Amino acid sequence: MEASPFQPGYPRPETRDGVFSREEVALANRNSGILLETLSLDVTPVGLHYLLNHFDVPLIDENDHRLLLDGAFDAPLTLSMQDIRALPQVTERVTLECAGNGREGVSPRSHLMPWMYEAVGTSEWMGTPLAPLLERARPREHVQDFVFTGADFGFDKGHAHSFARSLTPDQIADLEVMLVWGMNGQPLLPQHGAPLRIIVPGWYGMASVKWLTSITALTERFDGYQQKHGYHYRQRSDEAGTPITRILVKSLIKPPGVPDWVTRKRWLVAGPVTLEGRAWSGGGVPIESVEVFLDGVWQEADLTRPKSRYAWTHWQVEWAATPGVHHLICRATDAEGNTQPMQSRFDAAGFGNNSVHRVEVHVSDIPA
Amino acid sequence: MEASPFQPGYPRPETRDGVFSREEVALANRNSGILLETLSLDVTPVGLHYLLNHFDVPLIDENDHRLLLDGAFDAPLTLSMQDIRALPQVTERVTLECAGNGREGVSPRSHLMPWMYEAVGTSEWMGTPLAPLLERARPREHVQDFVFTGADFGFDKGHAHSFARSLTPDQIADLEVMLVWGMNGQPLLPQHGAPLRIIVPGWYGMASVKWLTSITALTERFDGYQQKHGYHYRQRSDEAGTPITRILVKSLIKPPGVPDWVTRKRWLVAGPVTLEGRAWSGGGVPIESVEVFLDGVWQEADLTRPKSRYAWTHWQVEWAATPGVHHLICRATDAEGNTQPMQSRFDAAGFGNNSVHRVEVHVSDIPA
Repeated sequence: MEASPFQPGYPRPETRDGVFSREEVALANRNSGILLETLSLDVTPVGLHYLLNHFDVPLIDENDHRLLLDGAFDAPLTLSMQDIRALPQVTERVTLECAGNGREGVSPRSHLMPWMYEAVGTSEWMGTPLAPLLERARPREHVQDFVFTGADFGFDKGHAHSFARSLTPDQIADLEVMLVWGMNGQPLLPQHGAPLRIIVPGWYGMASVKWLTSITALTERFDGYQQKHGYHYRQRSDEAGTPITRILVKSLIKPPGVPDWVTRKRWLVAGPVTLEGRAWSGGGVPIESVEVFLDGVWQEADLTRPKSRYAWTHWQVEWAATPGVHHLICRATDAEGNTQPMQSRFDAAGFGNNSVHRVEVHVSDIPA
Repeated sequence: MEASPFQPGYPRPETRDGVFSREEVALANRNSGILLETLSLDVTPVGLHYLLNHFDVPLIDENDHRLLLDGAFDAPLTLSMQDIRALPQVTERVTLECAGNGREGVSPRSHLMPWMYEAVGTSEWMGTPLAPLLERARPREHVQDFVFTGADFGFDKGHAHSFARSLTPDQIADLEVMLVWGMNGQPLLPQHGAPLRIIVPGWYGMASVKWLTSITALTERFDGYQQKHGYHYRQRSDEAGTPITRILVKSLIKPPGVPDWVTRKRWLVAGPVTLEGRAWSGGGVPIESVEVFLDGVWQEADLTRPKSRYAWTHWQVEWAATPGVHHLICRATDAEGNTQPMQSRFDAAGFGNNSVHRVEVHVSDIPA
C-alpha cells in the first residue's frame, strides 16, 4: 500500500544544505514573501505582505459568518460581522513575521517552507481591541486558556485539525490583541483571513489566527496540535521544547542598485549611495541601534522612530561605494540589549532564525 | 577574480529533475502564484494574481509619471496620468499566464523560476484601448514596431536593459491591447505595474509590459533583449527559435478535499463530490471541452461560458469518490482543436508547458 501523509509517522525527507526538494519548491511557490525593494515603504503594499497558510484559504461569505464566544463564559456570545463592526474601531500599524522566516539558513534544514529573508510585512490593521469583548462574555474564574480557532482545516504529520492557537488570561492582559476585519484601508483579503482574524502584536505570525470562527474559554490548558506540537523551539524534534512567542530582534537591507534577474545579486556604479532598510523586535521593544558592515567597519545607521511601537523602524546610512564585490551586512540591537547573531543558530524546525542579512553587491566604475 | 553574473557568459547551473538550487528557491520565494483553491472564483482576489517580475518593482509617484509616444510618430505625445485617465474608459476581464508556467515539469529543467501550475490569474483590468492613442500620435508609414518600455531595469545573462517588448502594426490591429491603470476596481498595485501598464489579451504575460514609460515607433524591427533573445521557444539554447506569442490551451483542477500541509496532497471522504476548475486558451479562442480522468474514464465536464472571450472558462463534473488513492487529470481542448498534451514537451527554457494538471487525492471511507 502507498504510504500516506494522512497517517501519523509519514516521514519528512532528510535535507541537504543548498539542495531542495520539489515539495519545498511547491511550498515556496504557494507561500509568498515581501519584495525587499519595498522595504523603503513604511507600510507594505496590499498583496506583498508575506503569506504563510498551512491549509487552503477558506472562502467565507461574510454575511453568513458568525464568531462564537463559547466554553467557560458566563455570557457566551454569537456575533455577526455587523455586530463586530459596530464595536469601537482602532487602527494599528503592526509588523508581522513568520516564525519560520530564515529557515533556509539553518543547518541541517527542516523540510518545510524554505523562507530566506522575506516572511515579514507591515500593515495598518483595522479592528477592535479584543480584551473588552472577552470581558463582556464574562469568562469564569478558573479559565486557563482562550482558544482561537480558524476555519482552515487540514492535516499535519497525520493529525487532522482546524488551525487553532490559544492565549492565557495573563497574555490577554499583557498583549494588545486585536480582532481585525480590515487591512491598509480596505476589507481584509481572503488570503489574510477574511472576514475576521486576530492580530497579536509583537508575536510571530502563528498567534494571529485567521478566518476566526470561535473563541473558546477553557478551564484547563489547550493541547491543540499547533499549540502543543507545532511552533516550539527544539534542538531535537522529539523533545517537548519551548513555545514560540515574541518576535526576535531582526533587520533587513533594501538591496541597493539593480539586480541580476536569476542570481538576484546586485550591481551599482561606484560613488555615494544611501543604504536603507528596516529593523524590528518583538513585544513592543524599540530598536536601539542598527549597524551596517561597510568596508570592514560597522557603521551606525540613523533611525527613524516608527509611528507605532509594534511597527518596524526605518534605518539609513551613507556609503561611498568603491569598485569591487562587497558583502553588506546589517545588525540590529533592541532596547533590551538583544542583538542579532552573525550566524544562524540551530533549531530543529528552523524557527526563530534572526541571524544577520547579507547582500552581495558588485560595484562598477563604469555605467551599465 | 570572482565570476560576475553582470558579465556575458556567466554560466547558468545544470539542473537535475526533482532537485532544486538555492537560486531557484529564492526566485520561487520572490515570485508568487495563484492559490489553486481560488480557482472557484471568476476573478482572482487582489494579491493572489501571479507575479513574475524580472527586476525590482519600481516605486513610481504617479503625479510625476509621464508616458512618451516618441520615435517615428508625426505627432509625438507626452501624457500625464491625468491625461490618460481622461481617455475613454473600458474594463475587460482577462486571464494572464506566465510563459514559464509549468517549467518545473520540463526535463531537463531550465535554471529559472520553477513554476509548477500556479502562474496564472484573471483580473478586471481598467484602462483605455491603445490603438486610438497610437493613431492620435500619427505613426509614420514605414513603422515596423511599437516598442513598449518599462521603468524596470536590470541584468539578464550580462545584458543591462530596461524591460521592453514590441508589437507590430498588424499585431496592434489584431489584438485588443489596453493601456491599464486599474485592476479589480482599484488603482493598479506597484507590483502589477503602477501607475501604468499594457495588457495584451490572449498572449502570455511577457507582452503585457508594466511600469510603462514610453511607446517608441521604429521604422526597423526591434532587437531588444527581451524581444530577440528572451521569450522564444527553442530546442537548443543557441538557436534563434520561435517568438512566444499566444497562450496555449490549458486547464487546472481546484484540488478537492483538504490538504496535507507539507506534501499538499489531498484528502477527502468517499461519496459524491463536485470537481471544478478553469480552462483557457490564447487569442480569444473559446474552450470547446474539458475532460477529467476519473476511475479510468475521461468524463466530459460542464462548461460555463466566460463573460469575456479573454477570460477563463469554469468547468465542473460530478465524481463518486471511492476509497483509495486517485490521480485526477484534466484536459482542455479549444475551438481550434488544440488539446493539452499528456506529457510535458521539451523547451530549452521551459516555456509553454501546457501539459495536463494532475492531482493526487486520498479518499477515505471514514471521516478525519
